[in-house]
Amino acid sequence: MARYLDPDDPGTRLFFQALDYAEELHQGQIRKSGAPYISHPCAVAEILAKEMEVRDPEMLAAAVLHDVIEDVPDVTYESIREQFGSVVAELVDGCTKMTRSHKDRAALKDLTHSKILQTASRRLGVLVIKLADRLHNLRTLHYLPQPKRQRIAQETVEIYAPLAAKLNIFPLKRELYHLALSYLYPRKSKKILNAIKALNSDPNVLEMEQLFHRAFGETALPVEVRRRVKGLGTYYDAAKGTLRLSNTENRVDFTVVVDSRDVRQCYFALGVVDTTFRPVPRTLRDFIANPKNNGYMSLHTRVHFRGENYLVKIRTTEMDQWARHGLLSHWRRSSQIDEAYLNEVSEFLRTIGEYGGGGPQRRHLIQLSEAEEITVYTPLGDAHVFPEGSIVLDFAYKIHSDLGNYCKGALVNGRFVPPTHVLKDGETVEILKSEERLDLDPGLERLCRTPKARSAINREVNRRRRAYAQWVGREILRQEMEHHGLPKDLLASDITRLILEVLNLKALEDLFVQVGQDLVSPHLVLYYLQDAPTRPVSQAKVKAQFDRNHSRNVLRVPELDPVIHKFAGCCHPFPGERQVVATLSERGITFHRSSCRDLSERHDLPSQRLLDVRWVKETPWTRPIFVRLRIQSKDGTPLLPIIGNTPPEIEVRQVRGRFGDPAGQWAVMDVVLRGFDDARRFFEAFPPAGVSVERYSHSEFPDGE
Amino acid sequence: MARYLDPDDPGTRLFFQALDYAEELHQGQIRKSGAPYISHPCAVAEILAKEMEVRDPEMLAAAVLHDVIEDVPDVTYESIREQFGSVVAELVDGCTKMTRSHKDRAALKDLTHSKILQTASRRLGVLVIKLADRLHNLRTLHYLPQPKRQRIAQETVEIYAPLAAKLNIFPLKRELYHLALSYLYPRKSKKILNAIKALNSDPNVLEMEQLFHRAFGETALPVEVRRRVKGLGTYYDAAKGTLRLSNTENRVDFTVVVDSRDVRQCYFALGVVDTTFRPVPRTLRDFIANPKNNGYMSLHTRVHFRGENYLVKIRTTEMDQWARHGLLSHWRRSSQIDEAYLNEVSEFLRTIGEYGGGGPQRRHLIQLSEAEEITVYTPLGDAHVFPEGSIVLDFAYKIHSDLGNYCKGALVNGRFVPPTHVLKDGETVEILKSEERLDLDPGLERLCRTPKARSAINREVNRRRRAYAQWVGREILRQEMEHHGLPKDLLASDITRLILEVLNLKALEDLFVQVGQDLVSPHLVLYYLQDAPTRPVSQAKVKAQFDRNHSRNVLRVPELDPVIHKFAGCCHPFPGERQVVATLSERGITFHRSSCRDLSERHDLPSQRLLDVRWVKETPWTRPIFVRLRIQSKDGTPLLPIIGNTPPEIEVRQVRGRFGDPAGQWAVMDVVLRGFDDARRFFEAFPPAGVSVERYSHSEFPDGE
Repeated sequence: MARYLDPDDPGTRLFFQALDYAEELHQGQIRKSGAPYISHPCAVAEILAKEMEVRDPEMLAAAVLHDVIEDVPDVTYESIREQFGSVVAELVDGCTKMTRSHKDRAALKDLTHSKILQTASRRLGVLVIKLADRLHNLRTLHYLPQPKRQRIAQETVEIYAPLAAKLNIFPLKRELYHLALSYLYPRKSKKILNAIKALNSDPNVLEMEQLFHRAFGETALPVEVRRRVKGLGTYYDAAKGTLRLSNTENRVDFTVVVDSRDVRQCYFALGVVDTTFRPVPRTLRDFIANPKNNGYMSLHTRVHFRGENYLVKIRTTEMDQWARHGLLSHWRRSSQIDEAYLNEVSEFLRTIGEYGGGGPQRRHLIQLSEAEEITVYTPLGDAHVFPEGSIVLDFAYKIHSDLGNYCKGALVNGRFVPPTHVLKDGETVEILKSEERLDLDPGLERLCRTPKARSAINREVNRRRRAYAQWVGREILRQEMEHHGLPKDLLASDITRLILEVLNLKALEDLFVQVGQDLVSPHLVLYYLQDAPTRPVSQAKVKAQFDRNHSRNVLRVPELDPVIHKFAGCCHPFPGERQVVATLSERGITFHRSSCRDLSERHDLPSQRLLDVRWVKETPWTRPIFVRLRIQSKDGTPLLPIIGNTPPEIEVRQVRGRFGDPAGQWAVMDVVLRGFDDARRFFEAFPPAGVSVERYSHSEFPDGE
Repeated sequence: MARYLDPDDPGTRLFFQALDYAEELHQGQIRKSGAPYISHPCAVAEILAKEMEVRDPEMLAAAVLHDVIEDVPDVTYESIREQFGSVVAELVDGCTKMTRSHKDRAALKDLTHSKILQTASRRLGVLVIKLADRLHNLRTLHYLPQPKRQRIAQETVEIYAPLAAKLNIFPLKRELYHLALSYLYPRKSKKILNAIKALNSDPNVLEMEQLFHRAFGETALPVEVRRRVKGLGTYYDAAKGTLRLSNTENRVDFTVVVDSRDVRQCYFALGVVDTTFRPVPRTLRDFIANPKNNGYMSLHTRVHFRGENYLVKIRTTEMDQWARHGLLSHWRRSSQIDEAYLNEVSEFLRTIGEYGGGGPQRRHLIQLSEAEEITVYTPLGDAHVFPEGSIVLDFAYKIHSDLGNYCKGALVNGRFVPPTHVLKDGETVEILKSEERLDLDPGLERLCRTPKARSAINREVNRRRRAYAQWVGREILRQEMEHHGLPKDLLASDITRLILEVLNLKALEDLFVQVGQDLVSPHLVLYYLQDAPTRPVSQAKVKAQFDRNHSRNVLRVPELDPVIHKFAGCCHPFPGERQVVATLSERGITFHRSSCRDLSERHDLPSQRLLDVRWVKETPWTRPIFVRLRIQSKDGTPLLPIIGNTPPEIEVRQVRGRFGDPAGQWAVMDVVLRGFDDARRFFEAFPPAGVSVERYSHSEFPDGE
């Protein structure tokens, strides 16, 4: 390591101290490969110093110490801070997995991701060390047991490789994808790697290279032309999770690096390229005048040669440095990084880290960051960059969260569009603010493409679910207490404080929420209320204490909220139907028919935990619900007369369908229901014999479908 | 004129001879302005020589002679050819209007356009003289009577200005639009011209101009920067026929002319522009590497400045010449014109000239030539340029007419699409050939965007209509002869030859076609057959000879062909219905109910010229017809039950509709009918009371709607 560190730097000592300390701590630990454990942190530090040219001693010290808090008992953030200062301590702590929680493995892993992202948002080095750590793990993957290999490779493809791309550290991203995909798809990788190898000696590519050299040889411009055969990662479709030769159109590209500080020479070089090869129309992109969000600059032109298209990137030496090493430049003391970009990356990591909607959604947000970018403008001409496919709401939330929360649409190039309108490159967008809060439906979050918008919507959905759960929990406890003849004001007593302490909760409201989300059994609370708690008891024991035939509690439903109430897909109950029960969870309420077999078999809920549903019919709903039914004929039963026989009181908003092929008939009906009576009347007719129904409801019919 | 003509050129004498001759011929004729007539051809020659810098003596000679064949009796093509040679004679003849025909004015005008286009396709000078002629007419428009002014201005906007654009003669196009639109839309023009005037001193525009000069001043590149405030024509939307300020997004553009033969300097200049102003993403177009069909070359970049977008065009001096004068360069002896482009223009003019589908369609074809262009590729990488909106069939017909006639679709970027698929810029298209001829329907021609495809389809439609008319005509004459007891073989006798001679027809088949298209009355033929013709007689006289109560002839219809059979929109008869009559025309057969009031009032047809329709029901149709009905509720009658009650034997392929608002209910039903019984059964149910039907049928349901 002495090779990479400046001996005159006082920091160098810090690093060697850290190395000694780590060696001491990991003493006696052995890796799966049989090597002493210390070899791993050393390798990580070496990757940083040698391959990524990181010269920062604190980063390297943190690299050799990165596993000590996790693996060595009694080593803590504090002990590291005392010896190596707070920067190193924060870096090491940021790399430490979450372990102290009651959650299952998937939830724990997601908590770890959340933590790494959040600490990385404050201190980017955490992520860089984590990436080097992951790279070394992948390089030594063969020593690990099979299930762990699989998990590491999968996690790399889903999280770490896209993050390396987001930080713009190109060689790292390439190797992470290469190793992980080779492991996950061994046969397909082999085939693709053979194709990649063949491209290296492809006669067309070699001829193009010669033509480049000849064309630039005739000019006075000093350029370097690099051919790049794309790596395995290019063939991976993250959205579909497939690795295929057909997943990429663009297997080889060329980079023309212009050795000049005058960016206008890049345009001259473009002239050389475009007059040497035939450019494909409308593919010219100027990322010099309009740099990408991450600071990337180049001219892009796609040229046609012998039946194939090739991307040609033209940039100065300085732009090239950035394009290849990205954020690493930060620790290399070579160039300054744009503050705005650092802030953008920080905010990106923080938003994704704080996102409260679950692991798969968090991974999906990371994936989305690899999408193509588009630029749209405010009416004043300020440019904003978004991932392709972003909608008006993404724009609104980017400007201001309140603009998102009260967005009623936008003027896009002067034309009114709804909040779910997909933006296109170059459009001018003026957000229109409403008096009323944005109408939420469960599909809205997925339509957004930016972490910020998804987070904001998720936060609002969770807030509403939590408020509802609190109300439900209070109701359930009230009913239970009444049933057991306990006085109403018991909850206001000192016992409650004790219960909260035992259950590790802060306030009574939290208890209601936990009961309303079925995380704490009401019976457990009852048990404690009757017999002041001294220590935690198992819920199984409590169960035995209560009458198995105790009648269910009741949930009164006066109105439906699409982000809270769901109708189970197994038994298709309908609003207004008799004999409907509800289950509770963090994601809201799910209705089942009480006869549902799926409910009793798969969910394995003791029937006392179900709630009997009473549809409150006195008042008509303040907001109608919109139900879209897709019905399908099962055995040639004609659908058209069924649709024609819809009760006349029901408002059928629109119908689309195909009826030509008797076996393949289907129809989509959009129906407006204004109360539970309407709903019962309508749903009692569906599905008639011979027709299957796939049903969902939401607050607004999507325009497109 | 002596100023413009080289006195050493032997051609100069030719011109002055022509001038003397024209003066002599137009002697005594006076223009509406009071000036001697000869002043007009002289002015046209002056426009050519002075404003368009045409130096070709034959062109100038033809210009002064351009009206003599039309206006002076006894002057013919031959007499001009003897004195001035065949080139001048062809040019003059090409400029001469059609007059000798029995057609009405609109048809005559269209014939003239057809002729000018066809002769211009062989000799482009015809069109250039015609354009100069038109320009002079517009400049002296105020002397003409009101209706003629209107006609000339309208024709200019529809035909001549777009043709000037097609020939790329920019200043001419600009003035033609300016004069004609100022006349046609006096108030709106005034408003727009004021706005145009204001733009000339717009502070943003002036500031941009300064920024351009400063930026280029810092380079060694010699450039001229021109600001261009766009003319009235830019504000005209030909498709909608509206002149509006909002019709253009782009009111001012800048041209950077680079004084260099090295085209790569244009790219350098692009660098100067794109680093001075902020370019709008994805708007960069490279028409240097990919010149437009008409040979136009430039780099285009759109830049943003203070809330507005401006197009900047960058080109060399040579490209600039071409961009401004276009095809005129041909007669200026300054530069050579690309042979391929001349051929392309010739073919364009010829195809539109020969087009047989009527005046409005011909004018529409000319309009379409002003559309944006797109470039698509064959699988081998050959580029083909099309107007925006072109479909797969346009591509197929461009490659080979047989490929169009047997096109069953295409692979566009490897994905199968139908023949009506709209192509996008940069796509690769592989046409798929079928064994069977392309299925024609009346809407297909309008979907195509190129003269070639439209012409080909129109030709095939006309061929089918003609063949059908021939069969119908023969049938009608057979019935008439039978009714009057004439022997069947009478038509094979010598009398027929005499009839053909009197009617100026070539063959018996032509007579059948004329009768089958209701251009010649069968009674007239009967009259001649009974009493061998010696001279033409009026049809009115013949009518008197025939019994007014003579029963109608019968048309037997075994099958429906969408390009031949139409159901009248006035009375909505349906296939299979009783009491249906047919009218004949060049465009095929139209069915009406025999009770139709519109038929008796508006068409004013003597009832003997109608045919009684007999639907031939013995055989099921070989090809089903597809009927799309759009039904609308008139007084809140619920539509859904009506749709649900469709007879079960009828195949309803699909339904779309809105039913939410009782008063605004509508539905579109696509129905498949396989024979006249089907049709009768279905249509007898439509429209029920309270529902109005708008109906049309075609061979295939469009995908999109």
